[in-house]
Amino acid sequence: MLKAARSGIKEAYTNEEYALMQAINAYNEMSRAYNLLYERLSEWYGLYFPEIKLTNPATLANLVLVFTNRNEVSEEDIKKAIKDDGQVQSIIQKAKASIGREMNGDEKAAIKSYARLSLETNSMLEELEKYLKLASKRILPNTTYLTDEKIAAELLSKAGSMERLAVMPASTIQLLGAEKALFKHIKFGSKPPKYGTLFKFPAVGNARKDTRGRIARAYAAKIAIALKADYFSKNFIAEKLKKDLDESISRIQKSPVKQKENRNFGHSRFNRFDGRKPNFKRGPKMHGSNKRHQH
Amino acid sequence: MLKAARSGIKEAYTNEEYALMQAINAYNEMSRAYNLLYERLSEWYGLYFPEIKLTNPATLANLVLVFTNRNEVSEEDIKKAIKDDGQVQSIIQKAKASIGREMNGDEKAAIKSYARLSLETNSMLEELEKYLKLASKRILPNTTYLTDEKIAAELLSKAGSMERLAVMPASTIQLLGAEKALFKHIKFGSKPPKYGTLFKFPAVGNARKDTRGRIARAYAAKIAIALKADYFSKNFIAEKLKKDLDESISRIQKSPVKQKENRNFGHSRFNRFDGRKPNFKRGPKMHGSNKRHQH
Repeated sequence: MLKAARSGIKEAYTNEEYALMQAINAYNEMSRAYNLLYERLSEWYGLYFPEIKLTNPATLANLVLVFTNRNEVSEEDIKKAIKDDGQVQSIIQKAKASIGREMNGDEKAAIKSYARLSLETNSMLEELEKYLKLASKRILPNTTYLTDEKIAAELLSKAGSMERLAVMPASTIQLLGAEKALFKHIKFGSKPPKYGTLFKFPAVGNARKDTRGRIARAYAAKIAIALKADYFSKNFIAEKLKKDLDESISRIQKSPVKQKENRNFGHSRFNRFDGRKPNFKRGPKMHGSNKRHQH
Repeated sequence: MLKAARSGIKEAYTNEEYALMQAINAYNEMSRAYNLLYERLSEWYGLYFPEIKLTNPATLANLVLVFTNRNEVSEEDIKKAIKDDGQVQSIIQKAKASIGREMNGDEKAAIKSYARLSLETNSMLEELEKYLKLASKRILPNTTYLTDEKIAAELLSKAGSMERLAVMPASTIQLLGAEKALFKHIKFGSKPPKYGTLFKFPAVGNARKDTRGRIARAYAAKIAIALKADYFSKNFIAEKLKKDLDESISRIQKSPVKQKENRNFGHSRFNRFDGRKPNFKRGPKMHGSNKRHQH
């Protein structure tokens, strides 16, 4: 019996999906840390060289590594750090006239080790990204084809397991990652959320605001089908799904946007003769309180 | 005139205090990231080797680096990762009987690069710590002697500059870092905070709860004096201050704790004959509303 229990647990561990979830969570956490590292580094280095503004975190870190002492730096060093040759001369000139503070030895060691960590975090993130790509394609081939490896992995992580994710209805998938906004809506009658994790996907997040919700719904509908194929049949049906999805999205983009705020007052917002006060609280609030009564 | 302005700005940059503030903030941010790294790593590695529990982050990361494949690992590798020789055999035995998942190649690369980053974060933190020690002693010798380099640097960072910190009254120093709790107290009448950054100092944070507030006040009083010596006179008076401080702390620890809840009902809490209801809301609430009227 003990043996059976052990092999049962072993089975539960054998799925790669759990490793994928760990990897996407690690990736998201460390991306945030990487942003912090970059912001702090540019603020810190700004004490010594306030004239320079580099928007690429890796370039900034490379520059910090070679360029801590204004009088000792060589042109080659800067060339190594900054790929753009045209900038090298202007950087050296700016450095000579800089009003920044001269670093002492201890400061150099500290800021350099900080810059090095920022580079190392970057290369770790790239390593994790490689793994995410491979594992998402292995475990969620259809879903990854429709979206990308990070969205697929994050949906999996929010759901908790492939089994749970595969049986979710499209509406739940659409709102995965928006739990907080959803419960706020149910409890306090705020506007209902239209997307959670899916918002991170460029095709949804960058869509026009009035079509974004409907595009998220179209994605969620196809993702729900893709997930079932990933988990149950293991067929690759994503190409067909993607074609259908593109069609419905172009339909959404062509269809006219409903003019919600005019619904109560006839067609023209400049020609209100019915004397009613505009009822701005209508939509979301009533929706919210309806929800509450149902529970 | 331009020249004068430039040299004025240059002067403002020349103080090392700004570098120290950057370093302590970087240190605090990355300590948090390091904790996240360790937690995630032990959860992730737990998929492959759930039987092992290591509480030292560096040991765990070292083990992950040498020990990703159960069948290929050598005793020497494990010895290198884990300093404790007695544990080596038990780890190998546990590994052989492990119910964890076997890693594939991609997973190995991902988790190893994650473990490596955790080690590198650790060594960066050590590098920053070295700098913090040196710079705090240079800029805040008296304050560092009374507390430690991190507390001194954090107080400086919360205040924003040496000048501002040096003229702060003891009561403000006591609550630096507790701004949120303070405004909650003023606005909503919650309990007033007794310590901010100072709570991180073991002598305050580990004190008995009923003396902790008074110990924080004693510290703040001496720190306020130490700061003035650090900024204005540059004398080293911390030894004398420390002696006085130790005396007042031992006085605080010996003095009886006031039994606040009995104040209204005579001396015994078991012998209430006055029939009044205990008024628990009294202290902080009234204080809060008084505050509000003053503004």
